[in-house]
Amino acid sequence: MDKLLEGYSRFRRDAWPHQRELYEQLADGQTPRLLVIACSDSRADPGQIFDVSPGELFVVRNVAALVPPYEQGEGLHGTSAAIEFAVQALGVKTILVMGHARCGGVRAAMDRSRWGTKSGAASQNLHFVNQWIDVLVPAVMALNTDDNEPCERAGVELSLANLMSFPFVAEKVEQGLLNLEGARFDIATGGLHLFNHARGWVRATPEPAA
Amino acid sequence: MDKLLEGYSRFRRDAWPHQRELYEQLADGQTPRLLVIACSDSRADPGQIFDVSPGELFVVRNVAALVPPYEQGEGLHGTSAAIEFAVQALGVKTILVMGHARCGGVRAAMDRSRWGTKSGAASQNLHFVNQWIDVLVPAVMALNTDDNEPCERAGVELSLANLMSFPFVAEKVEQGLLNLEGARFDIATGGLHLFNHARGWVRATPEPAA
Amino acid sequence: MDKLLEGYSRFRRDAWPHQRELYEQLADGQTPRLLVIACSDSRADPGQIFDVSPGELFVVRNVAALVPPYEQGEGLHGTSAAIEFAVQALGVKTILVMGHARCGGVRAAMDRSRWGTKSGAASQNLHFVNQWIDVLVPAVMALNTDDNEPCERAGVELSLANLMSFPFVAEKVEQGLLNLEGARFDIATGGLHLFNHARGWVRATPEPAA
Amino acid sequence: MDKLLEGYSRFRRDAWPHQRELYEQLADGQTPRLLVIACSDSRADPGQIFDVSPGELFVVRNVAALVPPYEQGEGLHGTSAAIEFAVQALGVKTILVMGHARCGGVRAAMDRSRWGTKSGAASQNLHFVNQWIDVLVPAVMALNTDDNEPCERAGVELSLANLMSFPFVAEKVEQGLLNLEGARFDIATGGLHLFNHARGWVRATPEPAA
Repeated sequence: MDKLLEGYSRFRRDAWPHQRELYEQLADGQTPRLLVIACSDSRADPGQIFDVSPGELFVVRNVAALVPPYEQGEGLHGTSAAIEFAVQALGVKTILVMGHARCGGVRAAMDRSRWGTKSGAASQNLHFVNQWIDVLVPAVMALNTDDNEPCERAGVELSLANLMSFPFVAEKVEQGLLNLEGARFDIATGGLHLFNHARGWVRATPEPAA
Repeated sequence: MDKLLEGYSRFRRDAWPHQRELYEQLADGQTPRLLVIACSDSRADPGQIFDVSPGELFVVRNVAALVPPYEQGEGLHGTSAAIEFAVQALGVKTILVMGHARCGGVRAAMDRSRWGTKSGAASQNLHFVNQWIDVLVPAVMALNTDDNEPCERAGVELSLANLMSFPFVAEKVEQGLLNLEGARFDIATGGLHLFNHARGWVRATPEPAA
Repeated sequence: MDKLLEGYSRFRRDAWPHQRELYEQLADGQTPRLLVIACSDSRADPGQIFDVSPGELFVVRNVAALVPPYEQGEGLHGTSAAIEFAVQALGVKTILVMGHARCGGVRAAMDRSRWGTKSGAASQNLHFVNQWIDVLVPAVMALNTDDNEPCERAGVELSLANLMSFPFVAEKVEQGLLNLEGARFDIATGGLHLFNHARGWVRATPEPAA
Repeated sequence: MDKLLEGYSRFRRDAWPHQRELYEQLADGQTPRLLVIACSDSRADPGQIFDVSPGELFVVRNVAALVPPYEQGEGLHGTSAAIEFAVQALGVKTILVMGHARCGGVRAAMDRSRWGTKSGAASQNLHFVNQWIDVLVPAVMALNTDDNEPCERAGVELSLANLMSFPFVAEKVEQGLLNLEGARFDIATGGLHLFNHARGWVRATPEPAA
């Protein structure tokens, strides 16, 4: 906690003087154009990777950057609530689902897609994680590979497809009012790959020499 | 999206050269000591406010920085999954719940806590948001005020109390292995207030001259 | 209905005289050794394809021969109930999941795995079918092919994996008391392919000249 | 499993040569006129009892040949999905619900309808079966008898009434486009009783000398 407060102190000393006016204006209300759904992982912070200013990104972070399928049942749907708020109340123009390399959540889905491991010892005390990550298991199982990368990509594609199962998302996409994009950040190299349905996966450019 | 890619370009040009080694090390695994549960709001990014380096914070962001009560039912519990992963798999030492001023989620709960407003026009198309934010309604209703600040504080306190309803959290807190903290960031002034159960609310220090 | 009664008449005239004693014995109780989970499709009747006698097969038939994942929530779980009854009360030794070529259910999952089709006109009046078949969508989407066969195989493999998510199934499989098998019947050729986790997919033998 | 493969071998040797052309035609698509909802019981196979050819019957088999009430909630509704597919996509003209004598599912409902028996030892490990079969308990309790037969009949009548709770079924029945029938097969004697709402229960004729 001390480390956090030291960081806050640096923020007040270094960043605040420059951003003071911006924060003062933002106090009247936020008007972000983008919703980013990213992983909770400490190594893949969308604010840092996209060097954003306060007020630019509405951000959801959960395990594996997952969008669950649309489901109107009882219960609390935190990710769906944030998507609904961003699309319906804030009117964001783009939703970016950003996965990343070495994702522990995708790895867990890969582990759980192996025969008989769902009842394995490793998963005994991760009840919530397992329910959550099992959304990815059928996709990962169908890929049948030990390579993380295609599974991480499939996770991003599945989340984008699940976004399209929300009627208020599909409607706006069809009207050209909302844009769905995917990305995968490679922690070791800093590289970024982008995905959308029309174009498939491509390497992000401009890509300065690393 | 172009704006995001420009930001990524800046990140690669400015930050990456300094952080390259750190990211390369982090590719082997993350060992964050803190879980921060923050709001999706574009104006309250914990990474910026605490000036953190990659690998330091495991971050959940949802509407209103909410921790729902422990509930083992069916369905997907994204926030609970992230808490479980951070505490049980990563072994974080501190959980910080950070609310903020001008929180639209808390405001929505205040609106919905007024007599008869649950069926109001404003909430017609926000099914998921309403289910989610109703967790706050009893607290907000009890405060019976039009002032956001006490409601935003109550939200942080309620989330901390809900954290204690998770058996694996309560156990570690009681053993002194896990520390629960709250905070509220004031967008307009950049100020930060801190809360924990022993000490109540205090202004964060060091607080350099703004 | 008349056609059915004519069939019943043939059954009484032709089959009953031979099977009378067997049916009389079976009236005391059934002791089937096999549970077959097959598709409701009119062209893939396991009783005919395996030329079984009364009393041999406990049979579940549903759309696409699907086993949903284990889920202890509220609500009626017809397939799970039949699996539980067969394994726990009847003590079957083998569970066979049999898919088939030209499966309309798998085809529907393939259609629904295409971008944006979840809200398409074709699926407007098939609420229950869509919820049911969406179990297959992530697997089918990951395969990303227009060829039915790999999707039909993936459906069988997913159902077998879902069977392993039932604790009482996994336990008996691990103790060697229960055997999980898959199959895919090719309507046009009458061919049969078999699957299990140890051996993968093989063509059924003996396979007499067609 | 060996026994199944021997049966498949007989099917290929004996039945296939005669049905080959039929199966080849059916590969283009199924057009069954009937949906049969039957019990999973190994002794009551509708394909055998009605001596049907491939392509004639779309078949659902579950514990006790049960149709649950119409319920649009979340979750997977396998039987409802199959009914919807048969009625809405295939356009079947008749739905037959076929119960049978000595039905273990109905017996379980009878056991559970006795005062205090819901917590009985026998039902400890049958979580899914109990939830499923409890649909029958109110009817069985009302009959208050130890005789299986009226309970088995009541089960068929209840499933037919539940079918009428599906809007797309009721509408077609009212338009004369869909016909609902019931039956009960007597395992020990091979006899068949028929039910519909207009006529009540009658013995099936023609009934050749047994």
